[in-house]
Amino acid sequence: MLLQSLREQVLEANLELVRRGLVLYTFGNASGVDRAQGLVVIKPSGVDYDELRPEHMVVTDLHGKIVEGDLRPSSDLDTHTLLYREFPSIGAVVHTHSEFATSFAQAGLAIPPFGTTHADYFHGPVPVTAPLTDAAIQGRYVHETGLAIVAQFAAHNIDPLAVPACLVNGHAPFVWGTDAHDAAHNAVVLEAVAKMAYRTLTLKPNAAEVSQALLDRHYQRKHGANATYGQSRSC
Amino acid sequence: MLLQSLREQVLEANLELVRRGLVLYTFGNASGVDRAQGLVVIKPSGVDYDELRPEHMVVTDLHGKIVEGDLRPSSDLDTHTLLYREFPSIGAVVHTHSEFATSFAQAGLAIPPFGTTHADYFHGPVPVTAPLTDAAIQGRYVHETGLAIVAQFAAHNIDPLAVPACLVNGHAPFVWGTDAHDAAHNAVVLEAVAKMAYRTLTLKPNAAEVSQALLDRHYQRKHGANATYGQSRSC
Amino acid sequence: MLLQSLREQVLEANLELVRRGLVLYTFGNASGVDRAQGLVVIKPSGVDYDELRPEHMVVTDLHGKIVEGDLRPSSDLDTHTLLYREFPSIGAVVHTHSEFATSFAQAGLAIPPFGTTHADYFHGPVPVTAPLTDAAIQGRYVHETGLAIVAQFAAHNIDPLAVPACLVNGHAPFVWGTDAHDAAHNAVVLEAVAKMAYRTLTLKPNAAEVSQALLDRHYQRKHGANATYGQSRSC
Amino acid sequence: MLLQSLREQVLEANLELVRRGLVLYTFGNASGVDRAQGLVVIKPSGVDYDELRPEHMVVTDLHGKIVEGDLRPSSDLDTHTLLYREFPSIGAVVHTHSEFATSFAQAGLAIPPFGTTHADYFHGPVPVTAPLTDAAIQGRYVHETGLAIVAQFAAHNIDPLAVPACLVNGHAPFVWGTDAHDAAHNAVVLEAVAKMAYRTLTLKPNAAEVSQALLDRHYQRKHGANATYGQSRSC
Repeated sequence: MLLQSLREQVLEANLELVRRGLVLYTFGNASGVDRAQGLVVIKPSGVDYDELRPEHMVVTDLHGKIVEGDLRPSSDLDTHTLLYREFPSIGAVVHTHSEFATSFAQAGLAIPPFGTTHADYFHGPVPVTAPLTDAAIQGRYVHETGLAIVAQFAAHNIDPLAVPACLVNGHAPFVWGTDAHDAAHNAVVLEAVAKMAYRTLTLKPNAAEVSQALLDRHYQRKHGANATYGQSRSC
Repeated sequence: MLLQSLREQVLEANLELVRRGLVLYTFGNASGVDRAQGLVVIKPSGVDYDELRPEHMVVTDLHGKIVEGDLRPSSDLDTHTLLYREFPSIGAVVHTHSEFATSFAQAGLAIPPFGTTHADYFHGPVPVTAPLTDAAIQGRYVHETGLAIVAQFAAHNIDPLAVPACLVNGHAPFVWGTDAHDAAHNAVVLEAVAKMAYRTLTLKPNAAEVSQALLDRHYQRKHGANATYGQSRSC
Repeated sequence: MLLQSLREQVLEANLELVRRGLVLYTFGNASGVDRAQGLVVIKPSGVDYDELRPEHMVVTDLHGKIVEGDLRPSSDLDTHTLLYREFPSIGAVVHTHSEFATSFAQAGLAIPPFGTTHADYFHGPVPVTAPLTDAAIQGRYVHETGLAIVAQFAAHNIDPLAVPACLVNGHAPFVWGTDAHDAAHNAVVLEAVAKMAYRTLTLKPNAAEVSQALLDRHYQRKHGANATYGQSRSC
Repeated sequence: MLLQSLREQVLEANLELVRRGLVLYTFGNASGVDRAQGLVVIKPSGVDYDELRPEHMVVTDLHGKIVEGDLRPSSDLDTHTLLYREFPSIGAVVHTHSEFATSFAQAGLAIPPFGTTHADYFHGPVPVTAPLTDAAIQGRYVHETGLAIVAQFAAHNIDPLAVPACLVNGHAPFVWGTDAHDAAHNAVVLEAVAKMAYRTLTLKPNAAEVSQALLDRHYQRKHGANATYGQSRSC
């Protein structure tokens, strides 16, 4: 069986989404990529989470051609593979309909950076795509979903690892990271950030975003060369 | 004992509503129909969920006449049987006071289709009935509740399986499906959809509904002849 | 030890409030009355719920004089005893700071009857008292809290068993019932009703109350001589 | 190992924050001070809560110099030590990103005293700092965070034990108390108070604060020389 370790990481990321309450029934999926081999490991579609095993994961190439696996892959596969092709720095993708992030997506609103929780993970607003055109929806819809994300990041020149999430208009968030654990962690934090942004906006509709200085400071605490958070890797 | 298997399915659907947090104390009920025999199996009224057993279920005909059972059936029985008579394609009915769907019912508002979670299950807005007249309330009230649902679906020419739920004005949702498992599943998803619609509207009161194209695309992903979600039945 | 059975009922009601999430730390209390003996059993003040035993309950007369018990009674005792003296039909009183009912109390707003969940338990709005005057606060404050409740019911001629709860302005709800089980049950339902009223109002600030006909119909389903809900007592 | 008992109290306070849902992943920290020895015990940075043991706690002096411990202390250490130096009456500090208190901090709003739950713990509004200047953010940021808190209390002449919490603008709450147990307890109550204030304000944007008389009365019930809540210490 190919990619045993990556299968386990992807499975574990899927289960973390469930444990954290981001997934109702089977409304979510996670995948990971092996860049050296050019292979993607993704959750199968519509299987109950408590029955999922590493061997149920589906292996495809970077264009979604199935390489190993008897089950049908997640119906969002084409969005995942497009993100892997267009964002070469990312190692995993997570998609959920987590309720607060999805509410922003449904309102067609980016999530503004209102505080340091946001700034610790997202170096700027979490953007929302333009609504898909009817032609895109009726065409290669899942692929077009990925294109809408990529277009948003290109238009605003955003580094996908500096802002590892995007809201798809009228749909829900896609989140990514350096590996499956990181992507799932980012998805959980995105939901917490969205929840607090929702409450900030309903308390004070014209609430101010944090300053660029605060955004920079907090983001660099966790991500810069001089990060001061957590234990150093040699611990 | 009649209909052993249907009793178990109906009991299990009732318990799923509790597990998913849709029911406080005994505020909910589920039933299923055996079309061949013309019999309905429904939860008894006001019995604690943790004491419910298949043999407690009450069996009635399609007009609510008790055929088997010592306990009084759910007080909403006449709504259930009317829905079975008027919507011949449905196999089960669920009623809860789940909090977000009920809040829309209390506000007299339909749930607009703001995203793909909605579109995967409900092919258009989840409608709300007109308020019942005093005469209807003082007359055959539970029967009239069913009539108000049916009138709403007739007036807008909605296929009950394409939109398997209706909000009763000033009351709460009724939900249905092809069988008891499906009806309970739809009730759980309706609550999640209502919760996200509530947050979408409180974030952005004039939020736009998804396009008809997106509504069609997502609904057909799960329900059309070319469904691409989940594993094929032969798996 | 006096009133063993009532002590157990009152303890169980206190624990039900905790199980249902109505109480944070020790912010709640329940009591019951023995009308024949003119004695009240009430939770002691500030004792952890998981250490509470029947023998910790404090027994007082109807004016709050301690008859049995080594612990100090709940600091809200004088409100409880005043309610027992003024509302002779009630058998138990519950006080919590449950979050949605308390939010209405803090906003100084009654809870309007927006739906049948409300109508099943409260035959009209759940009223809110006037704010207490400085003199009342600086005087016999706990006693004055009870007077404010009684004044509200007298002014609007409300039967305490038809509307078994009142919000104290800037404070929180007091709830009652025929016995301790019933009072705790009403407190749990009040919180659910308040939660749905909050969401109804934030969805639609001018939402309409249900009609008097619906209010009457639902209330009588559960409480009238011809109640049709639940199993008859002979079951 | 220094300060075994204080290490255990600080660990327990950290765990209480997790149990009460105030902390997501590692977004929180608690510390305690030994005034006699001039030593602070604080959680290490970024360690999973379920792996935390007393021996992982870091001991520093009142200026943050590490006295004992192999792990890096919480990245918020300089805020904690500044609060210990400036507020000599406090014995412990807690920092969380608990969601409702953080939403007020993100909106730049103090939490008004809307009810007695608030008044039992906070003798006036829970203040919010001014936003930090760019110079402060780019300088000794964590230290400046503490200065902003202290400045707010000095400007309004607030006793830190009468209002044992402050919201840092665009960040989250810092909470304190006489010891680690008390500080964690205050943080849990602050979140409950913030949640109810949020709902009060969204129900009624111009809701009135409680009177000074009520604020005084409730605060003194729990804190004054004539406290009437709980059991006397000799019980």
